[in-house]
Amino acid sequence: MSNPDSDLAPDADGPSSERAMPRAVTIIGPGLLGASVGLAIKAIDPEVEVTGLSRRKETGEAALRLGAIDVAETDPERALVAAELVVVAVPLSGFAGAFEQISRHAPLEAVVTDVGSTKASVQADAEAHLARDERFVGAHPMAGSEQKGPEHAKAELFRGKPCVLCPSARSTEPAQRIVRHLWASLGMRLMEMSPEMHDAQTAVISHLPHLAAVALMQTAVDRGGLGLASSGLRDTTRLASSNPPMRRDIVLNNRDAVALALGTMIERLQGLREAVEVGDADRLMQALEQAKRQRDRWLDQ
Amino acid sequence: MSNPDSDLAPDADGPSSERAMPRAVTIIGPGLLGASVGLAIKAIDPEVEVTGLSRRKETGEAALRLGAIDVAETDPERALVAAELVVVAVPLSGFAGAFEQISRHAPLEAVVTDVGSTKASVQADAEAHLARDERFVGAHPMAGSEQKGPEHAKAELFRGKPCVLCPSARSTEPAQRIVRHLWASLGMRLMEMSPEMHDAQTAVISHLPHLAAVALMQTAVDRGGLGLASSGLRDTTRLASSNPPMRRDIVLNNRDAVALALGTMIERLQGLREAVEVGDADRLMQALEQAKRQRDRWLDQ
Repeated sequence: MSNPDSDLAPDADGPSSERAMPRAVTIIGPGLLGASVGLAIKAIDPEVEVTGLSRRKETGEAALRLGAIDVAETDPERALVAAELVVVAVPLSGFAGAFEQISRHAPLEAVVTDVGSTKASVQADAEAHLARDERFVGAHPMAGSEQKGPEHAKAELFRGKPCVLCPSARSTEPAQRIVRHLWASLGMRLMEMSPEMHDAQTAVISHLPHLAAVALMQTAVDRGGLGLASSGLRDTTRLASSNPPMRRDIVLNNRDAVALALGTMIERLQGLREAVEVGDADRLMQALEQAKRQRDRWLDQ
Repeated sequence: MSNPDSDLAPDADGPSSERAMPRAVTIIGPGLLGASVGLAIKAIDPEVEVTGLSRRKETGEAALRLGAIDVAETDPERALVAAELVVVAVPLSGFAGAFEQISRHAPLEAVVTDVGSTKASVQADAEAHLARDERFVGAHPMAGSEQKGPEHAKAELFRGKPCVLCPSARSTEPAQRIVRHLWASLGMRLMEMSPEMHDAQTAVISHLPHLAAVALMQTAVDRGGLGLASSGLRDTTRLASSNPPMRRDIVLNNRDAVALALGTMIERLQGLREAVEVGDADRLMQALEQAKRQRDRWLDQ
């Protein structure tokens, strides 16, 4: 396995916090994403001991059967007592609790990262609930699927995908180094930005398209249009089939940015409606040409 | 080639207007759709003489090279003088002119159909510009692609797709029979409804999703979100790359229904924005679950 960042090559002789890939990793929440992290780590270095901590025993057992983890625990103390690196992969509503478990049971020097889809709320949870938040570096590996559960996990899930890292001003250099190495060695393209910038951008490219698909589906039913509907509507409403509680949590953890994005889209649609109502061909044409040009230019990049 | 409607089998002995598949078909506008109709007719019955009438000589020559037509004309009189069936496949803005050419040059008993994406405007054009509009039966074969021009034509373009027929109260029974046979023999699933019903439904399932994609693309750029954008945004904005002048014409020929659909979608988005702004988890969850249920139920049908 080639190392995408040779400056960060593992050094088995250094103290644990300075080694690039820690020897003991605990994944809190070995579901689809968490178990995929486990599979990918084991594929890179089978000697790393990966522990999965889950609330439901079945989740851990499924991840164990897959080989995504070496040990399945439901007891936080046993799962965390020896962790050098902790990956939090629980739903957003579970972060406060997970951080409290880490503070209570993990070694002081353990480094913490996560897979949460919003970053400002996770950073706030870290500052409120993590005893040593300078060892935390938030991450959003932008890979996933509409599927749930460890049974859909894949070691290759992350390869070639972007991973946004959001170190805080307090994140230590060694913690950043370990977290960067983790995600880079899973084959991800690393990007760094503030939690606020991450949330503003994902509001526009992920949370808004989901809500637009929801509104489009509702409108199709409201206006009795399904009789002729085919692949066009099916594709444009695909995101409306996403997991509702998960998407609700994401949106509510990114309220300001999502509300702003919705506001801009509503204004754009109102502009289109006005042009349609008065039959303003020039104004309509301008919008259609602008959007096509914007999309073509973006895809050419 | 099996006949999807055996009651309408060709009868070479009947008078021309009573035969199921006419012997001489003229396609006005042998572009992507027009040339595909030609290819499909020639595949079913190579003896039917198909003439293409185009404004630009190159369009006709390209269709001729493909074997989609037997004769390429730019002169309306020569193209129409012997036509038993005329298929109008020009942009919506060209229908009045095409109907006037038919009235001037085609035999009185020629049957007329079309491929226009809106049906009330085409029916109004037929009543205003076609000398014998009782020989006209509007059709919307719901097949197509983002591509343009006869070079992308395919005989199989229509197979298995829905075709909406909009006979008027004045359409004669023989004209309806011939038009139904044409589209059925191209492998389409026929549906009949009023032009108004067709336009209301396509506004919701086709014209609205296109405008939503335009607004989404503009919003992504307005709010500087493209840095992290990937396949999610690419798929949800795909329709924004559609041909602007063609889409403008479609929308402006279906203004009332599109404005109503836009209004409903804006209301739905405003409802979502309110729920997000105040953090109303129940209301948000209700919308997300409703849209998912609506989509799953529709796709299960």
